[in-house]
Amino acid sequence: MGAQRPTSTETQAGKGTRDERAVIAQSEDFSGWYNEVVLRAQLVDRGPAKGTMVIRPYGYRLWELLQADLDARIKATGHENAYFPLFIPESYLRREAEHVEGFAPELAVVTHAGGKELEEPLVVRPTSETIIGEMMAKWISSHRDLPLLLNQWANVVRWELRPRMFLRTTEFLWQEGHTAHVDEADAMRETLQMVEVYAQLARERAAIPVVVGEKTPGERFAGALRTFTIEGMMRDGKALQSGTSHYMGTNFAKAFDIKYADASSGGQQYCHTTSWGMSTRMIGAIIMAHGDDQGLMLPPRLAPYQAVIVPVGRGEATEVLGAVQALAAQCIAVGIRVHVDDRPQLSPGFKFNDWEMRGVPLRIEVGPRDVAAGTAVVARRLGGPKETVQLDGLAAALPGMLEEIQAAMLARATEFRDANTAAPNDWDAFASAVSVGWAMAFHCGVPDCEDEIKAITAATPRCIPNDAVAETGTCIRCDNPSAYGRRVLFGRSY
Amino acid sequence: MGAQRPTSTETQAGKGTRDERAVIAQSEDFSGWYNEVVLRAQLVDRGPAKGTMVIRPYGYRLWELLQADLDARIKATGHENAYFPLFIPESYLRREAEHVEGFAPELAVVTHAGGKELEEPLVVRPTSETIIGEMMAKWISSHRDLPLLLNQWANVVRWELRPRMFLRTTEFLWQEGHTAHVDEADAMRETLQMVEVYAQLARERAAIPVVVGEKTPGERFAGALRTFTIEGMMRDGKALQSGTSHYMGTNFAKAFDIKYADASSGGQQYCHTTSWGMSTRMIGAIIMAHGDDQGLMLPPRLAPYQAVIVPVGRGEATEVLGAVQALAAQCIAVGIRVHVDDRPQLSPGFKFNDWEMRGVPLRIEVGPRDVAAGTAVVARRLGGPKETVQLDGLAAALPGMLEEIQAAMLARATEFRDANTAAPNDWDAFASAVSVGWAMAFHCGVPDCEDEIKAITAATPRCIPNDAVAETGTCIRCDNPSAYGRRVLFGRSY
Repeated sequence: MGAQRPTSTETQAGKGTRDERAVIAQSEDFSGWYNEVVLRAQLVDRGPAKGTMVIRPYGYRLWELLQADLDARIKATGHENAYFPLFIPESYLRREAEHVEGFAPELAVVTHAGGKELEEPLVVRPTSETIIGEMMAKWISSHRDLPLLLNQWANVVRWELRPRMFLRTTEFLWQEGHTAHVDEADAMRETLQMVEVYAQLARERAAIPVVVGEKTPGERFAGALRTFTIEGMMRDGKALQSGTSHYMGTNFAKAFDIKYADASSGGQQYCHTTSWGMSTRMIGAIIMAHGDDQGLMLPPRLAPYQAVIVPVGRGEATEVLGAVQALAAQCIAVGIRVHVDDRPQLSPGFKFNDWEMRGVPLRIEVGPRDVAAGTAVVARRLGGPKETVQLDGLAAALPGMLEEIQAAMLARATEFRDANTAAPNDWDAFASAVSVGWAMAFHCGVPDCEDEIKAITAATPRCIPNDAVAETGTCIRCDNPSAYGRRVLFGRSY
Repeated sequence: MGAQRPTSTETQAGKGTRDERAVIAQSEDFSGWYNEVVLRAQLVDRGPAKGTMVIRPYGYRLWELLQADLDARIKATGHENAYFPLFIPESYLRREAEHVEGFAPELAVVTHAGGKELEEPLVVRPTSETIIGEMMAKWISSHRDLPLLLNQWANVVRWELRPRMFLRTTEFLWQEGHTAHVDEADAMRETLQMVEVYAQLARERAAIPVVVGEKTPGERFAGALRTFTIEGMMRDGKALQSGTSHYMGTNFAKAFDIKYADASSGGQQYCHTTSWGMSTRMIGAIIMAHGDDQGLMLPPRLAPYQAVIVPVGRGEATEVLGAVQALAAQCIAVGIRVHVDDRPQLSPGFKFNDWEMRGVPLRIEVGPRDVAAGTAVVARRLGGPKETVQLDGLAAALPGMLEEIQAAMLARATEFRDANTAAPNDWDAFASAVSVGWAMAFHCGVPDCEDEIKAITAATPRCIPNDAVAETGTCIRCDNPSAYGRRVLFGRSY
């Protein structure tokens, strides 16, 4: 990212969005569209250190809205927030063999502090299982201390060779839940509960009809016995993993000595632990699941501005601005996140394109003739004809319109996903399906066979969907008997 | 901190608070009391890396409540939240000479990442003026882009040689506001507005009657032209700086080339910038401004639990637990943060002491005889006799009781502050005043004279209070004419 030169467009976007050039068409260059739209919509900017991002107010507000909803769900399921240190002694990572193997290549290391070389280097947390495990061991002694249900909102650092805004950045924001339980049954209940919380948030707030399922062994989190994921389909047919939940068994409990005295015998038992996380990557999912050639299309429940009011007409007469301010006040009174675009130096046409590109669900235009007639013009980002509506009662009608748009966006994404998901039983149909979308297919479960499929098609097993029907067959690639008792979801991914 | 051995008490606190030993008396050993109470109340625990802290759920909830209130005030004054990277290229720090001089000794430095040595080391942010300045230069081109009003909630790292939980830790949480303006007048309006926001929060939520004033030149933020502070008096008579707001002039604008085209001439002008921050240190202020020999005393508006209900009596009969659950539901319905302590393994007496130590404003005891009589016993952490009250209507009365306690805590802290603040005009009276509290005194304004006062009494100028009356006199130490046109507030400090 440090090596890429900013284009003049991006520089302009940073300097006040005066560039009237259309964005790169999504249908022609999905990746170019994405890179351009995140910058021009002022969601992010590039940070000076390689692979870092600055989350600008428009992007951060989206994150805050998502975060508030997720935080409420996390608390409603009995978890408490806490905060653990950013710096982890390097030796902690090495205590769980698979964990360190998975994360070692991505670590950023503090070797000097306070003007001196440190005796033991400190790792900047890539995830916090180790340091939280150390503290859990200190806090848990009895079965009465269980379950211990913790969550933290934090920044984490994973050195990325091919960074991409929101999807893979050197530093990102997330929440990470960490819990300890008496046994496998309780820990698995937690693991599944939290992946469902993510799925509900994705569907209900982000309007993304994610598929919930378990990762195959090759795709598990480093140190986990079982990993569950939510996978969303992007507009280019690829999958984006948007939240994961892991059952660790007693791996971390043994590495960090997290034990409790049993209720019946009083004997020492290892805890069963879980962890689960959702990050700013979810913003990437929202961008790519809904955007189109014109730019972003934000779901109303998470849009920083749900409606933008644009005064139109020569000189923007006083009566227009008065009507606009009155309408804005009514919108705020009914709980709408509204913004009045009264920038005098820009034309209404420019503003229309700008807010369309930035994905605002509703645009309300008010001109002198509208004010005289007591009307306004409403345009939906989702499409359809502009409507002339009575100003009187408009604000009260907006929450309903926004909910309709929210539902329509989920329906549109669901149709798109279903239209691009096949259930092939032979290799050619499989290869063709994953070249444009997803394939539900039988697989033998052998890692080498997974690798071969990936080498030929770039597709990987995204998950074994929880709700797939019980079925067996022969592997799509090698014809051996299928594993898992269900079809596996394959797709190319981010 | 790494060198201190945990006492058996602290270990016990971590393992379920079964220790019935009283806390160290505040009146006998203030520092020992503080160190013990933050651990036993389960606000924090020590992190593995030197000087780091784990903020436990009870402490983090306090931070969340404070944060929600401060965030609303920051937004209400027109600021938007954003997020800037944790890692700052080392060279950025060097662009503002005073800034780097102030922070260099405290920096933590990442030298290796992704398995390689970095070409340029990255500093873990100690504060973000530099990286935000770099981005502001990119985003601001016209007077129309001003004022630019940003805030971020983040973790920062400053290597501490003498760490202390909440007060000075290697990593801490805070918000840092950063704004850019057309001129000094607008930037100074912002600087003063934000220190007043901190003062209001301190008084209205934390019940701390802080003094607002300007720092003398020797106590300014590294790189600032003017620094304003809120200073609270702790129960040992020392001052704690609990929030600061800085006017940077054009120092950072020149270092990072933050310029705008003037409205009238179109010529390029440097912006005037500000920054302001409040951190988890504020939790330390709350602990030390209100606590007593029994432990914490939390102001109701920020207390994680405003009321704790303890079922009492043999076997905790079903009717007692039923009445307790009904009362808890009523409390929740009127918006009270309530907790039912139904731990079966602990005695009511232990629970009373425990919640008293943890600072819960109201304790409600319900026993079998209470249930039969339709009553409950209410005890206030602030003191006074226990009251027997009707269960019917109790929940509805609690918000009023809590507001009375909130007001009484502010009054108590104000009386304490005023009783321990003198206005001496001679050296002996000054030395005596700062040995137990604060002194409002004339000072010549010469740094060497400040240093001499500090060397003899350990007291420093905390601030020149904004609301001090206009007065002149002779310096309390050197008899030269006084500076600042007002008395200066002196005190020992944290």
